[in-house]
Amino acid sequence: MNTRAPAKIRLYVEHPLGAGQSIPLTRDQAHYLFGVMRLGEGAAVLVFDGRNGEWLAEVSEAGKRGGTLVCREQTRPQQNPPDLWLLFAPIKKARTDFIVEKAAEMGAARICPVQTDFTNAERIRRDRLQAHAVEAAEQCGGTFVPEVAELARLDRVLADWPADRRLMFCDEALSGRASRLGAFFADQGARAAPWAILIGPEGGFSEAERARLAAMPQAVAVSLGPRILRADTAAVAALTLWQSTLGDWG
Amino acid sequence: MNTRAPAKIRLYVEHPLGAGQSIPLTRDQAHYLFGVMRLGEGAAVLVFDGRNGEWLAEVSEAGKRGGTLVCREQTRPQQNPPDLWLLFAPIKKARTDFIVEKAAEMGAARICPVQTDFTNAERIRRDRLQAHAVEAAEQCGGTFVPEVAELARLDRVLADWPADRRLMFCDEALSGRASRLGAFFADQGARAAPWAILIGPEGGFSEAERARLAAMPQAVAVSLGPRILRADTAAVAALTLWQSTLGDWG
Repeated sequence: MNTRAPAKIRLYVEHPLGAGQSIPLTRDQAHYLFGVMRLGEGAAVLVFDGRNGEWLAEVSEAGKRGGTLVCREQTRPQQNPPDLWLLFAPIKKARTDFIVEKAAEMGAARICPVQTDFTNAERIRRDRLQAHAVEAAEQCGGTFVPEVAELARLDRVLADWPADRRLMFCDEALSGRASRLGAFFADQGARAAPWAILIGPEGGFSEAERARLAAMPQAVAVSLGPRILRADTAAVAALTLWQSTLGDWG
Repeated sequence: MNTRAPAKIRLYVEHPLGAGQSIPLTRDQAHYLFGVMRLGEGAAVLVFDGRNGEWLAEVSEAGKRGGTLVCREQTRPQQNPPDLWLLFAPIKKARTDFIVEKAAEMGAARICPVQTDFTNAERIRRDRLQAHAVEAAEQCGGTFVPEVAELARLDRVLADWPADRRLMFCDEALSGRASRLGAFFADQGARAAPWAILIGPEGGFSEAERARLAAMPQAVAVSLGPRILRADTAAVAALTLWQSTLGDWG
């Protein structure tokens, strides 16, 4: 039997949080809190806005189409993830949703869907993916919500790549000659640099993409082991390697 | 445009493979190969039996309810994963399926669903989970299929725990005082030992379970970072840490 107190609801809100601040609720939030979860006036909720940490708030007004929370006290300081982007090629809907969810849980700062030469999905619903990132942040106890960028072509993204941002890319075809992540430690600049992880599409990279990546001084190929991983598995594995080696798991 | 040759179908078969060997197909396999994939006699298929590597086989007989393949030549040697078990508490159906799929992709040798004090799922469909492990092995290019064990109570599993098998357990409540995986290197026996990974249930471990784990000399607590991970994310993250540190990603 689980005898612990039930976990409080955690809600992401756009309104800036601060002591005594009134937080207006959207219709969807009011429906969730008062219709689905049956909270009434005086009930406690945890809220975060992605910038000002987590706060304990109290329902001061509960209506069918809206309501108000009042911020009482900060329960956790703001904790931003490292400056890490996750670039991935969208795949089937459910697995794309999973990648966004996992990227938020694993502490990516920005999630960038990219269209590669072998990507099948030609469009994404950015707003739907952003909602998945919000939900994952609510679930995982984080105070930060990664932004989901618009779908962009990988060749254009790489053409404009920032000179100082390192790029760890994971490509099964390169696993034989891929660097081990441990080698990154030899380079003292790696810890201070901004980074990105690029997960290859399920169809692999094209030769043109491989050549472009190989020519980038910022890029390093990393092996994810001897088995072929699905894109969603590869995203979690790559984020784990990075976070445990260079990120905030220390 | 993807100009590469289409990937060959990979099929797990129970019949032992060897040069010239005839492989009888089940009704489901015949339906898949001849009904769904429209293969005819003479078509090539890759097969593996989990023990004798991967073989190129040819359709010698194609029927509606059955058929026969003939083994031509070995295309990959048998490659077994390290002696690593994954223990996890079953959660909602789709995420339990994901955990089994990811454990197979990530190279677990045995997958053990365990019922903890706070596990909600009281039964599992072992045959369905085993089918997921087979499908994942077919997809990931592996030659090994991990066995899915019957659901067992965690307290009984720990009471019978083998003296020589190390146990890495991942518990958010312990993250503050959890060991870092790097410390394992100090212990030279860690690389040679059989291992298991235990992923905590979504409701966390009970105090009795924590006390039991803390008292086991074989057990080590490992932190999976500052955010709370869902059980399926935690399984991939823990397998990544283990495989990249002690396993076959070297």
